[in-house]
Amino acid sequence: MKKLVGIIMGSDSDLPIMNKAIEVLQEFQIGFEVKILSAHRTPDEHTDYAKTAEQRGLKVIIAAAGGAAHLPGVTAAHTILPIIGVPINSKLNGIDSLLSIVQMPSGIPVATVAVDGAKNSALLAIEILALSDKKIREKLIIYRENQRKESYAKNEKLNK
Amino acid sequence: MKKLVGIIMGSDSDLPIMNKAIEVLQEFQIGFEVKILSAHRTPDEHTDYAKTAEQRGLKVIIAAAGGAAHLPGVTAAHTILPIIGVPINSKLNGIDSLLSIVQMPSGIPVATVAVDGAKNSALLAIEILALSDKKIREKLIIYRENQRKESYAKNEKLNK
Amino acid sequence: MKKLVGIIMGSDSDLPIMNKAIEVLQEFQIGFEVKILSAHRTPDEHTDYAKTAEQRGLKVIIAAAGGAAHLPGVTAAHTILPIIGVPINSKLNGIDSLLSIVQMPSGIPVATVAVDGAKNSALLAIEILALSDKKIREKLIIYRENQRKESYAKNEKLNK
Amino acid sequence: MKKLVGIIMGSDSDLPIMNKAIEVLQEFQIGFEVKILSAHRTPDEHTDYAKTAEQRGLKVIIAAAGGAAHLPGVTAAHTILPIIGVPINSKLNGIDSLLSIVQMPSGIPVATVAVDGAKNSALLAIEILALSDKKIREKLIIYRENQRKESYAKNEKLNK
Amino acid sequence: MKKLVGIIMGSDSDLPIMNKAIEVLQEFQIGFEVKILSAHRTPDEHTDYAKTAEQRGLKVIIAAAGGAAHLPGVTAAHTILPIIGVPINSKLNGIDSLLSIVQMPSGIPVATVAVDGAKNSALLAIEILALSDKKIREKLIIYRENQRKESYAKNEKLNK
Amino acid sequence: MKKLVGIIMGSDSDLPIMNKAIEVLQEFQIGFEVKILSAHRTPDEHTDYAKTAEQRGLKVIIAAAGGAAHLPGVTAAHTILPIIGVPINSKLNGIDSLLSIVQMPSGIPVATVAVDGAKNSALLAIEILALSDKKIREKLIIYRENQRKESYAKNEKLNK
Amino acid sequence: MKKLVGIIMGSDSDLPIMNKAIEVLQEFQIGFEVKILSAHRTPDEHTDYAKTAEQRGLKVIIAAAGGAAHLPGVTAAHTILPIIGVPINSKLNGIDSLLSIVQMPSGIPVATVAVDGAKNSALLAIEILALSDKKIREKLIIYRENQRKESYAKNEKLNK
Amino acid sequence: MKKLVGIIMGSDSDLPIMNKAIEVLQEFQIGFEVKILSAHRTPDEHTDYAKTAEQRGLKVIIAAAGGAAHLPGVTAAHTILPIIGVPINSKLNGIDSLLSIVQMPSGIPVATVAVDGAKNSALLAIEILALSDKKIREKLIIYRENQRKESYAKNEKLNK
Repeated sequence: MKKLVGIIMGSDSDLPIMNKAIEVLQEFQIGFEVKILSAHRTPDEHTDYAKTAEQRGLKVIIAAAGGAAHLPGVTAAHTILPIIGVPINSKLNGIDSLLSIVQMPSGIPVATVAVDGAKNSALLAIEILALSDKKIREKLIIYRENQRKESYAKNEKLNK
Repeated sequence: MKKLVGIIMGSDSDLPIMNKAIEVLQEFQIGFEVKILSAHRTPDEHTDYAKTAEQRGLKVIIAAAGGAAHLPGVTAAHTILPIIGVPINSKLNGIDSLLSIVQMPSGIPVATVAVDGAKNSALLAIEILALSDKKIREKLIIYRENQRKESYAKNEKLNK
Repeated sequence: MKKLVGIIMGSDSDLPIMNKAIEVLQEFQIGFEVKILSAHRTPDEHTDYAKTAEQRGLKVIIAAAGGAAHLPGVTAAHTILPIIGVPINSKLNGIDSLLSIVQMPSGIPVATVAVDGAKNSALLAIEILALSDKKIREKLIIYRENQRKESYAKNEKLNK
Repeated sequence: MKKLVGIIMGSDSDLPIMNKAIEVLQEFQIGFEVKILSAHRTPDEHTDYAKTAEQRGLKVIIAAAGGAAHLPGVTAAHTILPIIGVPINSKLNGIDSLLSIVQMPSGIPVATVAVDGAKNSALLAIEILALSDKKIREKLIIYRENQRKESYAKNEKLNK
Repeated sequence: MKKLVGIIMGSDSDLPIMNKAIEVLQEFQIGFEVKILSAHRTPDEHTDYAKTAEQRGLKVIIAAAGGAAHLPGVTAAHTILPIIGVPINSKLNGIDSLLSIVQMPSGIPVATVAVDGAKNSALLAIEILALSDKKIREKLIIYRENQRKESYAKNEKLNK
Repeated sequence: MKKLVGIIMGSDSDLPIMNKAIEVLQEFQIGFEVKILSAHRTPDEHTDYAKTAEQRGLKVIIAAAGGAAHLPGVTAAHTILPIIGVPINSKLNGIDSLLSIVQMPSGIPVATVAVDGAKNSALLAIEILALSDKKIREKLIIYRENQRKESYAKNEKLNK
Repeated sequence: MKKLVGIIMGSDSDLPIMNKAIEVLQEFQIGFEVKILSAHRTPDEHTDYAKTAEQRGLKVIIAAAGGAAHLPGVTAAHTILPIIGVPINSKLNGIDSLLSIVQMPSGIPVATVAVDGAKNSALLAIEILALSDKKIREKLIIYRENQRKESYAKNEKLNK
Repeated sequence: MKKLVGIIMGSDSDLPIMNKAIEVLQEFQIGFEVKILSAHRTPDEHTDYAKTAEQRGLKVIIAAAGGAAHLPGVTAAHTILPIIGVPINSKLNGIDSLLSIVQMPSGIPVATVAVDGAKNSALLAIEILALSDKKIREKLIIYRENQRKESYAKNEKLNK
């Protein structure tokens, strides 16, 4: 299966959170790859990764990091692919991670989701892929519909 | 020119900020439309807009709002198009706008940019469009390159 | 018993907190209904609920949500009934929930109570109902008096 | 005209903000009274005011204060009328005013609106009054409709 | 023993924290009294307490409260005795308690200590009492000296 | 006139704020002294000042500082006199100044007032002095009464 | 004069702030260079700069940036020279800049100074250089002494 | 082994965090000393320590403290050695500790690292020492390289 989404994270301690993104992509049968890459501890490997992402066929990169979370922004600097940033919860409740990712300067955007918002990072990647892939689009419509039904089911359970 | 990007905002007081998004889209010669739509004051018109966005040919919606900024999230609830949220500066320095937009619950993502990050909202839309449009992709590469050159030029000026 | 108060919440995970509102309404023998309704995952069902609330006889709606908590504000957009918003504690200690609910733009108010303030949301609903219902008013006066007495009793216990 | 709404504020420096509440009540032709009352500098007069509010015919009290904003909460302690709290902007951008008002302990609620949300405090009072007054209810429906139309008009102007 | 210090708190849930203040006053053999008094749930009893504090011989009042912590400020409104405010940790990490206590308007000060700073509230009361009581002053000098010695002892233990 | 109150501040840029403390002390005819003393730039002079304050006859020290505001706490370390800390507004709206002053560790308290709360710092000093000085006590009672009257006068003006 | 200190900043809009660092280095007659380098807009030039800094003879790098301020951390990733980070004031009062710089993950430190703390960034660089350069050390001692004297002079002026 | 680095902390409760700094210095075989010194409880011993640090051969001081964390700044006031400040996590998530340390006034810098950033405080000290000590420099290069390799190893493990 062709890899369309790259999932990178600053540390393997982010993996339990990011597994929720992996599960969503698997549910949608979308090819992806996962890498531990640090903008600080492995900057050269990271730069290579970002610079070659487009030619290797990736369409979207999901980058997760905590604290002074530079990974999404520095990835965005080296590619024109859309970068989705996931702020990982930290000592300061993730407010440092969030601000470090979302407050990017003009010229290089990062599409930021909620603190620990791994699931939504995958769904955002899927929305982007769905723009040019009818099968993904159809699956997304069904996914949304199922989401609605689950909510209805909870209500019926509640009222019993 | 076909409209690919919808720009909506909660109030016309957001327009001076959002003009920077408009200018970038014009520079890239990408068709767009602009509307004042409030999730609170005109909820039905807004729902119609969001529900019909995809069939009207839009690919991405940029939604800007301040304070309890519900517009991007509620737009995302009614469409599977990617929604880019722009938190507009407010009495609380925009931290309320930012958190109201970025902290979306699982299931419905919003791609959030910086407080008052109108320019980056357009560039993020362009990155998404570039995935399936070679001309936009080429323009984006040139735009990035020019951005680099401007920075070099500032350095040369500085050193004189 | 006629339903006067609607209690809605974004997710069933909010139910343990909101049970405190339910208990107070039961203590006052005020009719109410409880629903899981998401402004994001079930927007159409939610809109229906809000639009028909008044004609179905509701007088007040208590809406609880966490994170980017849009439920109270979007409910308020579709009805002229008073909406009481309860910010549910979240990853950011509830400050995101609080700001998303309280910082409503001019034109559509939400009566916001404390983070996880479910009990007070019910008491505020009761204060509103008491304006036109003498029995509820009398019960509220007794409730307040009992509250005072409990505090006195604690003091006596303390001084022994 | 019978006074239904009391507007109190901690300092006359809050008056320019609170004038927006006064204008809305005047537009709705609802009787009201305005007083400078401080929970700190004039506590006895304030207690008298709060204790006698209901018997004097008031239905709702709007209380505005900044900084360590105790006025709304202390008013609520002395009456069973619904109290609407308006946090006034301060040195800390109003976050101190907001938290001092909204984070009330269980037992005594305050219906809090946005920082400097004077207009919405009046509209919330009107929503409460509309529950038992058909004329006010009709005016509120028209007000909401006009609000929608203003927004439409802005769009038409924008598109020209 | 004559009661010189009043310790009041909004709720008996604050007692475990405030016990540290009690212990310090006991260690200094200073007379004190402890009361649960709420500015919201028992406002009249509280007002009586504050108004009669000076004539009953109290010199300083320590007031502890959490959330929208009005107790210290409202106590200060009713007496010219120095009031020491102790912000009690809350859902928002005590920042709401702190700001509700410290940000008092001009005219009525509250001497605020750290979040959960019960021990320091007692030591501050003692510093004030020491100004006109030589025995307390001497004990305070010894207390400070012992505090220094404990720190030295920790160093010696550390270096072994 | 004997100097009872020391007013120290980290920088002469704090003087415009602290003038309000000076004016209150002058109004009460209480002797005081003013010094620019930095815990960082003039630590030895500052230590001397704090260590000799009690023997020079001072009863209370008011210490104002902004940013990483160490002056009040470090003063408290060198004397058993009550120290009143005034957080001066700064780039971060004074929240850094406030936390640097109020969050003192157990053992050494600082009586903290509001951000830029110079006037209240003087009134707190006066409350402390009033405990053992009948004339100051009487002036304070009159001051409070006048404060009440000013508030009444504003109301009468408002109602005309 | 040999260049010992590199001053880099994300944007030329940071220059007015960073001029204070330049003035201090000039006063100490320490060689330095200034460059506009963005971790986002000119990532390759920036990487080159950081990687070659040590061999070009630099001893310390001062890096200033605002918002999602990645420049100091990413510079630190490419060199073992000490990096001093200066958070530049921004829409969020610089709290985003501060957290983006200071909250670095384990392994790659950044020596962070205050928001807009350009002057202190130069003094910190000088303290580091003074460890192995007696002339700089002597100048620093004199600088500190002059700083003390200025403070004394202000006091004398104040007391006249 | 000659002591080059002083590690001081306000309380022995900070020791578990600061052990990570100790381990790094031990790994690099750099001489160091550890002391519990409080700017508040043992100010004179602390002043002595700071004033004599340079003549005793120390090159860098790491100072850790929580809450109103004055230790790093007050140490910096008494020596021209570089001071590295470590904000220790506290009731307010360490934001008070961080701001108390990093927001130093012009003239006296503190090199601040992340909340609980003990490991990075040691690495920053090592970067400074490496400027004039080739052996330390070589060890630091190897340390960085090993850090990279560990990250690679995690990736290989992940991909199996």
